[in-house]
Amino acid sequence: MSLVVIGSVAFDALETPFGKTDKIIGGAATYISLSASYSLKPVKLVAVVGDDFPQSDILLLEEHGVDTEGLQIKQGEKSFFWSGVYSKDLNSRETLVTELNVLADFDPIIPDSYQDCKYLMLGNLAPQVQRLVIQRLVNRPKLIVMDTMNFWMDIALEELISTIEMVDVLSINDEEARQLSGEYSLVKAARKILDMGPKYLIIKKGEHGALLFHHNKEGLKIFYAPALPLEEVFDPTGAGDTFAGGFIGYLAATDDISFDNLKRAVIHGSAMASFCVEKFGTERLLNLKPEEIEAREKQFADLVEVVPASAVQTA
Amino acid sequence: MSLVVIGSVAFDALETPFGKTDKIIGGAATYISLSASYSLKPVKLVAVVGDDFPQSDILLLEEHGVDTEGLQIKQGEKSFFWSGVYSKDLNSRETLVTELNVLADFDPIIPDSYQDCKYLMLGNLAPQVQRLVIQRLVNRPKLIVMDTMNFWMDIALEELISTIEMVDVLSINDEEARQLSGEYSLVKAARKILDMGPKYLIIKKGEHGALLFHHNKEGLKIFYAPALPLEEVFDPTGAGDTFAGGFIGYLAATDDISFDNLKRAVIHGSAMASFCVEKFGTERLLNLKPEEIEAREKQFADLVEVVPASAVQTA
Repeated sequence: MSLVVIGSVAFDALETPFGKTDKIIGGAATYISLSASYSLKPVKLVAVVGDDFPQSDILLLEEHGVDTEGLQIKQGEKSFFWSGVYSKDLNSRETLVTELNVLADFDPIIPDSYQDCKYLMLGNLAPQVQRLVIQRLVNRPKLIVMDTMNFWMDIALEELISTIEMVDVLSINDEEARQLSGEYSLVKAARKILDMGPKYLIIKKGEHGALLFHHNKEGLKIFYAPALPLEEVFDPTGAGDTFAGGFIGYLAATDDISFDNLKRAVIHGSAMASFCVEKFGTERLLNLKPEEIEAREKQFADLVEVVPASAVQTA
Repeated sequence: MSLVVIGSVAFDALETPFGKTDKIIGGAATYISLSASYSLKPVKLVAVVGDDFPQSDILLLEEHGVDTEGLQIKQGEKSFFWSGVYSKDLNSRETLVTELNVLADFDPIIPDSYQDCKYLMLGNLAPQVQRLVIQRLVNRPKLIVMDTMNFWMDIALEELISTIEMVDVLSINDEEARQLSGEYSLVKAARKILDMGPKYLIIKKGEHGALLFHHNKEGLKIFYAPALPLEEVFDPTGAGDTFAGGFIGYLAATDDISFDNLKRAVIHGSAMASFCVEKFGTERLLNLKPEEIEAREKQFADLVEVVPASAVQTA
């Protein structure tokens, strides 16, 4: 099923307690596309870079099944650049440099060959740009998933809310859910956010896993996906985007948007994110084997597995 | 199976964003005993109070199946008193008053009728007192579970470590696991703590659930019990102790200390804790119905339930 991904393709320079990088390929859409590519190909990318972006990195995306027809290359301009340093416990980070560059006036152009889009992933970007993409698709996709961040809640709340209204699944972290709803309890926050329009809400809690909420006639349904407790977290950059890519990739590949399948997609996304943090940047996402992914998903299932006592007694 | 619980029985004065209490019954052993009493009776209590402790509160414990033969009442002395204020998000609290009173020189006396102890719960207390209880039992219990806190890591680390050596299950929170091990990763922390002696480690993560670790020949086994996302948390006091009481009560009632049964005990303890926080102090623990507990456990099971895709395809 046709999957379109929009978001930033960028340079990152990262420093964690375990080392630092020069400018490496980064950006929400990069992580999303690479992660989704393990579920289905092609992943149709809508993004913008400057002419400083290396052809080799574009080839890298293409080798992973990313269709770059929708990737605009702006001559004489520079790619989006972000640089940050993580705290010793990796739980917080300080932004050193944010250079919007080409992102400042990004006008997302949808190639005709993308108009068959059934699954649309709106990676973190200005909400007005995310909305433009929805508007420029002739037919409304079957499922629209949107990721965003507190930055837009601070400076473009109204635009943000009118974009959230148009999507099926919103994916944010716990602090963002609290900020957006004004509620500390995540259950109350979820009720308020689902009232804004989306059918589903994913609240990402980092090392504590993710919650999937759905409000239907029977009331509020909640699914809790744990995070895999990891021995080493090397670099958390891109984990949320990798999660989102795995999530929508799984849904697009299975073409099933039931709540049960959304749960499976959350587990798959969580498994993909657990790989992402094992190495710097996108490195771990470049050469994953299907059997590694399957084994990781099995670990997630085992992590919460409880054999009911009744099953034991009758055994 | 005979269960002995040691810990504080005390007065608490609590303030949360939802209200405040005068002196009410509190203390680790109170919450542990009440919680365990829903799994089996009697719960044999070892604790100390002053003559200010109301007979009505002792009767309350006895009505819930708590054997108070091991509860010392010190004439002319006052009960342990703790007073605290919770932050608006309930995630932190400030201690206003700690009066050790009778706890300052607590000498735990084990009644003869407690010597059949098979399951021993060491609630948070000075580690030398916890150790004394183990030493005063003629036969080593089948399972010893110990709860402790950062306070003892700060002021009595050596005593603490030599007590931890003697127990089967240690229960602490995530920050305490990090402090005790010097490791930020909870997996690394668990390895180090399990090397100190316990066969099992429970790391409580509050609203993020609990992890159960076990190291055997096959390596490190991990179980992740989610916490139930709650609409309202009224008062977190005693949640950890209620968890511990539910945990050991379940194990004592089923008399099965396999890893599979420990998982079920963690879920039961989590369910009990989720009730505790719904009202002030011990209030919610006083009148629970078996069907309420069962329904809550079912909610925990539903929360993480994923129907495998393969099951769907063959259906």
